[in-house]
Amino acid sequence: MTNKAIILLSGGLDSTTCLALAKQQKLETYALSFNYQQKHSVELTAAKKIAKHYAVNDHYIVDITLPNNQLSSLTNNNLTPPQYSANSDDTHIPNTYVPARNTLFLSYALSLAESIQANSIWIGCSVIDYSNYPDCRPEFIQSYQQLIDNAVPLGVNNQPIKLKAPLLNLSKAETIKLGLSLGVNYSMTISCYCATAEQPACGKCDSCVLRQKGFAEIT
Amino acid sequence: MTNKAIILLSGGLDSTTCLALAKQQKLETYALSFNYQQKHSVELTAAKKIAKHYAVNDHYIVDITLPNNQLSSLTNNNLTPPQYSANSDDTHIPNTYVPARNTLFLSYALSLAESIQANSIWIGCSVIDYSNYPDCRPEFIQSYQQLIDNAVPLGVNNQPIKLKAPLLNLSKAETIKLGLSLGVNYSMTISCYCATAEQPACGKCDSCVLRQKGFAEIT
Repeated sequence: MTNKAIILLSGGLDSTTCLALAKQQKLETYALSFNYQQKHSVELTAAKKIAKHYAVNDHYIVDITLPNNQLSSLTNNNLTPPQYSANSDDTHIPNTYVPARNTLFLSYALSLAESIQANSIWIGCSVIDYSNYPDCRPEFIQSYQQLIDNAVPLGVNNQPIKLKAPLLNLSKAETIKLGLSLGVNYSMTISCYCATAEQPACGKCDSCVLRQKGFAEIT
Repeated sequence: MTNKAIILLSGGLDSTTCLALAKQQKLETYALSFNYQQKHSVELTAAKKIAKHYAVNDHYIVDITLPNNQLSSLTNNNLTPPQYSANSDDTHIPNTYVPARNTLFLSYALSLAESIQANSIWIGCSVIDYSNYPDCRPEFIQSYQQLIDNAVPLGVNNQPIKLKAPLLNLSKAETIKLGLSLGVNYSMTISCYCATAEQPACGKCDSCVLRQKGFAEIT
């Protein structure tokens, strides 16, 4: 088993907590971020700072051109992310969903894991306090692990590649508590779906409100 | 169920047969090709001609930048694809393997399927007369279908997205027979791992020799 870990790093609260956790476990960390033409690409500025702060072994920023980017308000200029609603239907998937985003991100991570011989891939998704994205649920994570096992049956260095989702069943408050115990400086992170350099948090979108509520719960 | 089908189209023999099969089934075809910095990117010239020949509804050519492209002789200028060897170990994976290539291709196809509401994704891989790539085996295809089912649990238009691998258990000769019965003009296709505009087939690599043997078997 190698000591190398690939961390999907958006620059947000969850992925930064994942990185801090991997560092605590003394892993060699390789951060992987994506420019998928998200309107809030300022998150990549945060990702770069965070990767530097944690002295990762390498930070890859990969450009992704979606064959069609019209469906999501994160990539379509004509759509706007909705404001958070406490009463929203639990099964409703908001327009911030990007088709197959986590599938794509993990596929790049898998390619990199095989190439640099990393035995783990870390993703900061959670099924608690989330936006109902189907690709953040335990069923998705389990399926992706099975896919890895069949896509790379020999593993790397004779060991399987493990998909780690340590925040999967944590509430936002629990994630923040974990991160604070690891010394994470959350002021470095950007979570907002509408973030710009001038206004890194709108305070109204799902991502902002879930973050605010998380911090409120622990104080 | 929509009538839309996404066809992974490399420009080679197998994917062209898939496209011909989808056309025979009167599907609305959307071809998807990738420029992943493969040295034999002349295959994309063939893919364009083939897509045009079959009057696909749209042909997407997506640029992929692999975070690390050193492992494969298809992307690393310092490596050379091996010559075909009839005695090669059945479990040996040659250096033409590109880490997670089919996983990446299918992930883009999944994103596109969700975006344009397509209910099927077609891939021309086969586990007979192949190069031992793990991501061409039935276990991989089955795992990817399960991943799709969990990544897009609601499907599109209330129907699941189906992964079709109609050549999976066909020998190269059987694929060619099928294609010829569908009227495929294989002179349009490029299979060679070393293809250039000047020399579209080296005649010595795995891909060339498997193709030659396929044609030889049916004559």
